[in-house]
Formats: sequence, C-alpha cells, structure tokens
Amino acid sequence: MRTQVVIVGSGPSGLLLGQLLAGIGVETVILERSSRNHVLGRVRAGVLEQGTVDLLGEAGAAARLHAEGLPHSGISLAFDGRLHRIDLAELTGGRHVTVYGQTEVTHDLMDRREAAGLVTVYEASDVALHDFGGAAPFVTYDKDGITRRMDCDFIAGCDGYHGVSRGSVPERALKTFERQYPFGWLGVLAEVPPADHELVYANHERGFALCSMRSTHRSRYYVQCPEGDRVEAWSDDRFWDELRRRLPEQTAASVTTGPSFEKSIAPLRSFVAEPMRFGRLFLVGDAAHIVPPTGAKGLNLAASDVRYLFNGFRDFYQGKSGAGLDAYSAKALARVWKAVRFSWWMTTMLHRFPDTGDFGQRIQEAELDYLVHSRAASTALAENYVGLPY
Amino acid sequence: MRTQVVIVGSGPSGLLLGQLLAGIGVETVILERSSRNHVLGRVRAGVLEQGTVDLLGEAGAAARLHAEGLPHSGISLAFDGRLHRIDLAELTGGRHVTVYGQTEVTHDLMDRREAAGLVTVYEASDVALHDFGGAAPFVTYDKDGITRRMDCDFIAGCDGYHGVSRGSVPERALKTFERQYPFGWLGVLAEVPPADHELVYANHERGFALCSMRSTHRSRYYVQCPEGDRVEAWSDDRFWDELRRRLPEQTAASVTTGPSFEKSIAPLRSFVAEPMRFGRLFLVGDAAHIVPPTGAKGLNLAASDVRYLFNGFRDFYQGKSGAGLDAYSAKALARVWKAVRFSWWMTTMLHRFPDTGDFGQRIQEAELDYLVHSRAASTALAENYVGLPY
Repeated sequence: MRTQVVIVGSGPSGLLLGQLLAGIGVETVILERSSRNHVLGRVRAGVLEQGTVDLLGEAGAAARLHAEGLPHSGISLAFDGRLHRIDLAELTGGRHVTVYGQTEVTHDLMDRREAAGLVTVYEASDVALHDFGGAAPFVTYDKDGITRRMDCDFIAGCDGYHGVSRGSVPERALKTFERQYPFGWLGVLAEVPPADHELVYANHERGFALCSMRSTHRSRYYVQCPEGDRVEAWSDDRFWDELRRRLPEQTAASVTTGPSFEKSIAPLRSFVAEPMRFGRLFLVGDAAHIVPPTGAKGLNLAASDVRYLFNGFRDFYQGKSGAGLDAYSAKALARVWKAVRFSWWMTTMLHRFPDTGDFGQRIQEAELDYLVHSRAASTALAENYVGLPY
Repeated sequence: MRTQVVIVGSGPSGLLLGQLLAGIGVETVILERSSRNHVLGRVRAGVLEQGTVDLLGEAGAAARLHAEGLPHSGISLAFDGRLHRIDLAELTGGRHVTVYGQTEVTHDLMDRREAAGLVTVYEASDVALHDFGGAAPFVTYDKDGITRRMDCDFIAGCDGYHGVSRGSVPERALKTFERQYPFGWLGVLAEVPPADHELVYANHERGFALCSMRSTHRSRYYVQCPEGDRVEAWSDDRFWDELRRRLPEQTAASVTTGPSFEKSIAPLRSFVAEPMRFGRLFLVGDAAHIVPPTGAKGLNLAASDVRYLFNGFRDFYQGKSGAGLDAYSAKALARVWKAVRFSWWMTTMLHRFPDTGDFGQRIQEAELDYLVHSRAASTALAENYVGLPY
C-alpha cells in the first residue's frame, strides 16, 4: 500500500496534521499503537493558545471548541497568602487563552477524520520506520497478526516521548537536552465547580498548587508532591486538605470538594531532541520535546510544530518549494526553546525545590512580588502565556 | 566622649550617611579599622543608579561625579557571537546609569568630611559595640594603644560583610540566607581605552565575561574563572586571550590590551541577614547583604539603605517621629530582596554553571534571545538595572 504522508500516532498533533493535509488534498494514513478508546482516555492539558485555536479552526475542528471552550483573559498567581491577577488580555492587546480539554480536542479531530473517511489504523503493533534517510521511505506494522507495509513520501513522527519515531533515529544523529525536576504533580479530576473562574497558580512553602478546570462544572487540581510518591498514599481527603493549605484563604474557602474520578502522579521533565528532521522523517510535538506542564505549553507547542510542518508540506505538494520542509527543524526549535525556557522558568519560580533552601524560597517570593508589581515583568509573563508569535 | 550617631566603617555607606546627617546638624563619629589609604586602595564597583547619584548630590559630594562620571544610556548583552544593545534610557523613560568608580565616590566623601571638620578615627582597633539593645549604647575601641569609649544615641553598622557590627548581634536574633556560586570573577584594571563605550555582558560557553570601565582611558575587564583558581595562574597574556575568546569578534577586535595594574579574583555570593535593626544598632549595606557584582547593585543597595536610614534619623532628630527608624528594616529589606533577586537572575543567566550542563546553556541562550527581542522583557531588565523606585 502507498500514501503520501504516514503519520505515526493518533494524538492531537498527528490528527491535526492529518486534517490540515486533507484540506489541501494530501493523503495520509495514521498508524496508532493503541485503541481509539485508549487514546481518548488519556487525561492531558487543557489550555489552548489563540494560535492553537486558530489552527484547529483551519482544520475544520473548532465548532465545539468555540461553543464549549472557556475563554480566559487572565490567570492568578497566589503567594504570601494573597491572590494577584495577571490580566493577560489587557497586557497583550486583547489576547486570551481558551480552556478546553485535550481529550476533547482529540475527540473533535477524530470525529472530523472519520467523517471525511480518512484512514486511521488503531492497534497497529510493531510499527517500524524504514529508509527515511533515502528517497523511498516505508513503514511496516502488524495488524490482526499480519505484517503490512506502507510506502510513502514522508513520515511524521507524532507518537510522543516514548514513541518509535525518535527511537528509530540513530543515537549519534541526535543531540538531547534534559532536565528532571525533583518532584511530581499529583492531579485530580472531580465533577465539582472550580474554585476560581480562572486558573490559580500557587507558590507555597509546602509546595506548588494549581487550580484549573475543564469546564464550569469539572475541576482539575494539582499539588506538587515528592519524587517517588505513590498515588495510593493520597486519599481524596488528604488531597483536598493539602490543596487548601497551599491556597490563600479566600481561594481555599471556594474549593468545592467531591469524589475524584481521576487521580494520578506525573513526573516533571524538560527534554529537547535536536534536530527535528532526519531525511524524510519529521518529529512533531512530544516526540521531540517535553515541557513541564506549569506553563501549559505542551499541546500548544505540538500545534506550532504542526503549523510549521504543514506549511512546509503545502509548499512542497503545491510544487512551490521544499524550502519550508528544509527550514522546519530550525524554525520549530527556535519556538520550542522559547517555550521550554518559559516552562522551566514558571516551574522554577513556583515550586518548592528541596536543594535551594530558604534562599531559594525568598528569591521566589521576591520574583513574584516584583512580577505582579512591574508592568514590564507581568507583560513578559502574559505574552509567553498567551503564546509567542510564530 | 559622646556623639549622636557612631558610624562603624568608613566606606561609601558610612561616609554618605555621615554627610547627610551633618547636613541636618546631627553629629557623627566614624570609626574605621583600617587606614585612610587602605580604604581608598580598595577597588570596587563603578556603576551608579540615578538615585545614588541624587543622594550623593544631597550630601554635597557630587561635583566631581557630575564633571567626570560617564552617563550610560545602554548596556550590551553578547551571546551567540553577536552584540545586542539594551537601550536603558528609551525603555525607562529617559533614565540612565553613571559610571564612576566607588573609590572616587569614597574619595569625594572623605574630602567633604574632612573639609567639614568631622571626625573619622582611622586605625581604630578592637571596635566593640555595647548595650545597643538598651537606651544607652556605647562603642569601645583602641587607638594608639589606649582604649576609648564613645557613648551615643545610635550605632550605624556600615562595616561590611566581615565587620564587627553584624558579628555583635546574637546569632539567635539573625536569620541568614545564602547562596554561593561555584565560580569567581577574575578582574583586571588597565590604563587602556575600553573596548566599547558602554558595558558589555557576555554569555559564552567558556564562561562569562564583562567589559567595563572606570573612565574613557581606564578599562575594567572580568572573566568568570573556576572556584579556587589562583591569580598567579593568570598572566596578562592569558587573561587578554581568554577575554577576547569570550567576546563577539567585533568587540574582541576593539579590546586594547596593556599591562594590568590590578588583578584579583573575587568569589560570588548572595547573602542576606534579617532583620537590619537590633534596638539602637542599624546594619547598612554589605554588613547586612551581599550581591554578586553582575547586576552592579552592591553600592547602589548600600545607598538605598542609607537613604531609608537617613530619613528615619531626620524624622527622629527633628522631633517628628521614630516611625521611620522602626520601619527601616522592613523598608530596606523589601528593596534589598528585589536587588538580590535581580543580581541572582543576571548571574544565573550569564554564567556557565558546572552542574546545569548543555540544558542550562541552551536555556540561557533561549532566555537571552527572548530577552533582547521582547520589549517587555528588555524593559524588565532595564528598569532593574537603572534602579527600582524607592
């Protein structure tokens, strides 16, 4: 079998790329290791930059997002017992972010792909990438016990940090950059109204906390927890108590508790692999880079990779030039590193680090105090949070 | 003997406080452990905030500063082989800094003090502070083999990090915050014209470098060196070679080399002691806090302490209120922590850290790249560099 672009991975970046390519008549096949339901069961980010919303619109997958997404024009930073609002819209000339769960984005894109009759092979096992260094790459995979081969022009590796795409690149061809943070995020989903109508990022001597949401009736809360902590050690009661201790009184009082229907611990990591192109293989999103979730940049960065790669494919297939594809890695990485920097900075400023002691805590408080009182510093945060230009 | 305020230490903060108090008729005696020439031989900072210049003017000690100081309306950041200018004046509504050596500030203040016939006791040994927790403090010291006693209303501890003032406070009454940086600055003074008319702060994978100056014909250069390096290992030739390797080509080509007449290695440290008042003893400047020199804040922070303390003394001696003295510690510390934060940030962004590896280097480059291209981020740097409001 043959297609123009094989997309490995049926997460939001692979699906989005597929829809955009379909819009210009480029044929894709998506190979996904897991089942459709497994992909949809993943709980992920939920804050979309305007550029991400726009790109989903271009892909024809933003109708429900526009109807149900919550536009937020600010966030709050909590420290020293008080809440300080950063007015994103006022500081950035009217820009905002949209709260809409990644699961919903994936769902909408899958619906569009199915409606258009485009091929996604779920539960494709033993996916292997071949000859992407030459002119005739192909991908093999097993489906229903039969090994199949898919020839193509290009392969888009949209299969995440643990995927086969980056793993197929010879180690000597990759330069990787990594930072592990000495803590994790314990996250809880509960069917309760959120404590605040916007996100609250809290710096507290007991550790970071985040009040987030998926909708007006579904809350997403996080608390920083020690490395190696197990989710079994966290009863709902313990979680709600710890969360409220880390929030200013007024915010803590507004927390509606209820049974959690999802509870998990995620490690925090910064990771970048360079370059993002190897012959006819392109790495996209988490396959090439991971950011800690503090700056809400993971999904948005995947979307900006997709934008650059789509532009390159469009120019190529419309017979204009391969220059966009040649420039993909450098262009994507320039924006990636800025978001990696921002995510590292937000993480560093807001979490309790076991090794920086009292000096580190005071530096954080001084930084937060400066930040919320300086228009320039608040603007710098805001312009990164709503998304730097492409 | 009796005076109103005993000032321990004849550096710029003690001298400046003495001149300001003399201006409102408050009598001071300065006790200095070293000789006049030793004090004047110390090579220190040379970048003054406008607020520091203004305060020296109030003290009547700014005539030569106004005649010989070099107003700088910008600095440059060098990285990735290029120079990026931060236009301080344009970003801060016309504010600038003034390059004028700390040694010259000290000299001018000493001249004023001598002209006014005010008492400074040089080579006062075994200075000891007594009863500052009560209503009648006094200071004892040895001079010419005789132990003397000076009674006073207040003691101002302006005697630096290693001075007796902070050392006289019971340990349990102090909370200290400290960060040691794993490198030092090798500094050189040479009678050559500077490479650039403004300061150049360079981030380079070999380590930080700074092109500074004392005048149009005297240059002050620094390179980051490993902890424990000895100045004997650095010939002039080695220094000039290393400096030029860390600078963009155009800047390196403009370095005029020549014999160094001062060469020394300084460790980098952040340190804050809280509070800054203990009964009738006030700590001022380096006696209470140390910043790494990267942000040029040490002397300026000492001057802002002096401003707050002088205001407190003025209100007290003019019979208004002791509220200014009561508020001194909290007011001074609020500004101190902001400058400690800024100095830590400049240091962290510009130096090579042995433990952060390639990830750390890329984060720095991403931060610098963002910084010089974002008006908001450039403004945040600029407003800190020229000095936050009092």
